[in-house]
Amino acid sequence: MYRLIEQDGRAKSAEFKTVHGTIQTPVFMNVGTLAAIKGAVSTIDLNNIGTQVQLSNTYHLHLRPGDQIVKKMGGLHKFMVWDKPILTDSGGFQVFSLAKLRKIQEEGVYFSSHIDGRKIFMGPEESMQIQSNLASTIAMAFDECPPHPAERSYMIDSVERTTRWLIRCIKEMDRLNSLEDTINKKQMLFGINQGGTYADIRIEHAKRISELNLAGYAIGGLAVGESHEEMYYILEETVPYLPLNKPVYLMGVGTPANILEAVDRGVDFFDCVYPSRNGRHGHAYTGFGKLNLMNAKYQLDDRPIEEGCACPACQHYSRAYIRHLLKAKEMLGMRLLVLHNLYFYNHMMEEIREAIRNKRYKEYKKQKLENFMGGED
Amino acid sequence: MYRLIEQDGRAKSAEFKTVHGTIQTPVFMNVGTLAAIKGAVSTIDLNNIGTQVQLSNTYHLHLRPGDQIVKKMGGLHKFMVWDKPILTDSGGFQVFSLAKLRKIQEEGVYFSSHIDGRKIFMGPEESMQIQSNLASTIAMAFDECPPHPAERSYMIDSVERTTRWLIRCIKEMDRLNSLEDTINKKQMLFGINQGGTYADIRIEHAKRISELNLAGYAIGGLAVGESHEEMYYILEETVPYLPLNKPVYLMGVGTPANILEAVDRGVDFFDCVYPSRNGRHGHAYTGFGKLNLMNAKYQLDDRPIEEGCACPACQHYSRAYIRHLLKAKEMLGMRLLVLHNLYFYNHMMEEIREAIRNKRYKEYKKQKLENFMGGED
Ligand SMILES: [Zn+2]
Ligand SMILES: [Zn+2]
Repeated sequence: MYRLIEQDGRAKSAEFKTVHGTIQTPVFMNVGTLAAIKGAVSTIDLNNIGTQVQLSNTYHLHLRPGDQIVKKMGGLHKFMVWDKPILTDSGGFQVFSLAKLRKIQEEGVYFSSHIDGRKIFMGPEESMQIQSNLASTIAMAFDECPPHPAERSYMIDSVERTTRWLIRCIKEMDRLNSLEDTINKKQMLFGINQGGTYADIRIEHAKRISELNLAGYAIGGLAVGESHEEMYYILEETVPYLPLNKPVYLMGVGTPANILEAVDRGVDFFDCVYPSRNGRHGHAYTGFGKLNLMNAKYQLDDRPIEEGCACPACQHYSRAYIRHLLKAKEMLGMRLLVLHNLYFYNHMMEEIREAIRNKRYKEYKKQKLENFMGGED
Repeated sequence: MYRLIEQDGRAKSAEFKTVHGTIQTPVFMNVGTLAAIKGAVSTIDLNNIGTQVQLSNTYHLHLRPGDQIVKKMGGLHKFMVWDKPILTDSGGFQVFSLAKLRKIQEEGVYFSSHIDGRKIFMGPEESMQIQSNLASTIAMAFDECPPHPAERSYMIDSVERTTRWLIRCIKEMDRLNSLEDTINKKQMLFGINQGGTYADIRIEHAKRISELNLAGYAIGGLAVGESHEEMYYILEETVPYLPLNKPVYLMGVGTPANILEAVDRGVDFFDCVYPSRNGRHGHAYTGFGKLNLMNAKYQLDDRPIEEGCACPACQHYSRAYIRHLLKAKEMLGMRLLVLHNLYFYNHMMEEIREAIRNKRYKEYKKQKLENFMGGED
């Protein structure tokens, strides 16, 4: 299903075939936590801004509207009207970051809903069952996201448990995919590499999970407080121990510069809330750095957010107008910025793929990073 | 500029030519208070849901971003990217309903901004100047909106002052339209009839302002707390004293049923915040009444808001999905409902025009009102 098209240094560009269509990598997945992109952006909009994969959150959808509801509605694809690939995370990250009163046991995690305090249990089987109900294209294994920093001994125990959980995930997904009433019987599973900033633990774990012949591999537990340099170092050390002929997904990353660096270290899937979150706060990504459109200097600026940008915001509206909308707290301002930012990310990935496929990735990356440093226009 | 195409009873359907294109009446103007439709709806969206006229608020735009800014950006049309007609209200209604510490004098009104308490003066000349800066297609005369109920003697004095202010508005607009740097030198002025629920005061005032040969006439000071029956009665009494060959605009009205009744009494322009405000609160208009999409019974309802509706929401999304978005407080839920509701109003106006032009308005209205009473589906 994963066909490597070109490698340029360690940067790789591939085609990944799924039951919901082919993904060109490197790819940035657009985050729709609750089966909707924050900022009043719909799946119709996603089609217009070049989105290839939509990512939704298992934990959030389990609580609202409930994965049973989504299953009854025919799965996430039918529910949110999206026929391209969807990746669902395992819920693990949210259980460890959002939920209250958690207790980790061998069988899984006991926690209280951050919405109503309701007691919930989630283990590998439950996570797979929820993701099977959601019927995403790609399901993520249920793992522990260890705190950063974590003691070495804690990390070793945690990673070992994550491996045991992964094996239970594989077994449960096999079972679910064989059931009569499963919506997506071809759901794929990505395993998650953990180990914090301990390179040796990461490498051992990468080797171990690579043996399991999963559809893809993710690197989790990064971008949780460590420095960019530490993150890049871990990628350099770890990615070579993941299969070359499988997609590598760096979870929750990151800035445009992070993505350029991670691609150079062999990553081909990304997701991050930055473009939508920053958009909602008035920040726009451009090829020459980030703009804060709340800034007074844009009051009379009749240029688009970025000259030459083909996004729905830049095709019509000026910085001055968007600034006014933001100041007046009109939702339209957020929507236009989120559309621009997601388009910016999606479009950069397109450039990245082209650069790798033309074997000029280093040059492209260098130029792009220099331009970002150019600062505000 | 106003060409009566057909009359059916008192209901009239006309073409109203403006410098920004021809308006087919009866028409419902879509309210974009701050140069944006609330609910993350853009002018591109308005084009897709059949909007003919966009209405913006002088008071709000004077405070934010400031009419001088809008003028420097080339006027409201360029600022918000809308090339069809725009009507601006005079600011009077907001001054009387929103602003604090007002003092009414012959020259105008002294008040404090509801945003920062800043002291502002607005009289007929200032209102015309602001609207000229905004460069709307149609400007509204600056009037006093008397409280409801008001004493007869207060009402007489107020209406007389409104007439004196109207004459000052006409003079000031003539002056502004002749200035070199005025953006829209063909800006038109609508006068406003007042008089509360005193039919005789309304009639005398209607006769008086009809002599002034304005581009159009509005009926203000209704839908401010009186009953629907009182409103219909005032329309029956007053509209016949306004020129038949000019548009009649009933300000701030109303529900679909209100519009059907007012059209039957000779009104051809409407505006109201109901479709967008109700949309933001989860209420959808349909041919068989209003739906509250927060209701649990829509949890698994895979039908569109209204079967057969051609709006962007109903073309793609289900009641169940929109309900989920609303419950999860996703902005997209509001956006989809506002799009549906505005389309519903715009589409109903299209049906109304067709019914009048085919001389079957009474029948159409009767059927429509009966269906509304049908209740939730
Ligand atoms: Zn753009
Ligand atoms: Zn609709």
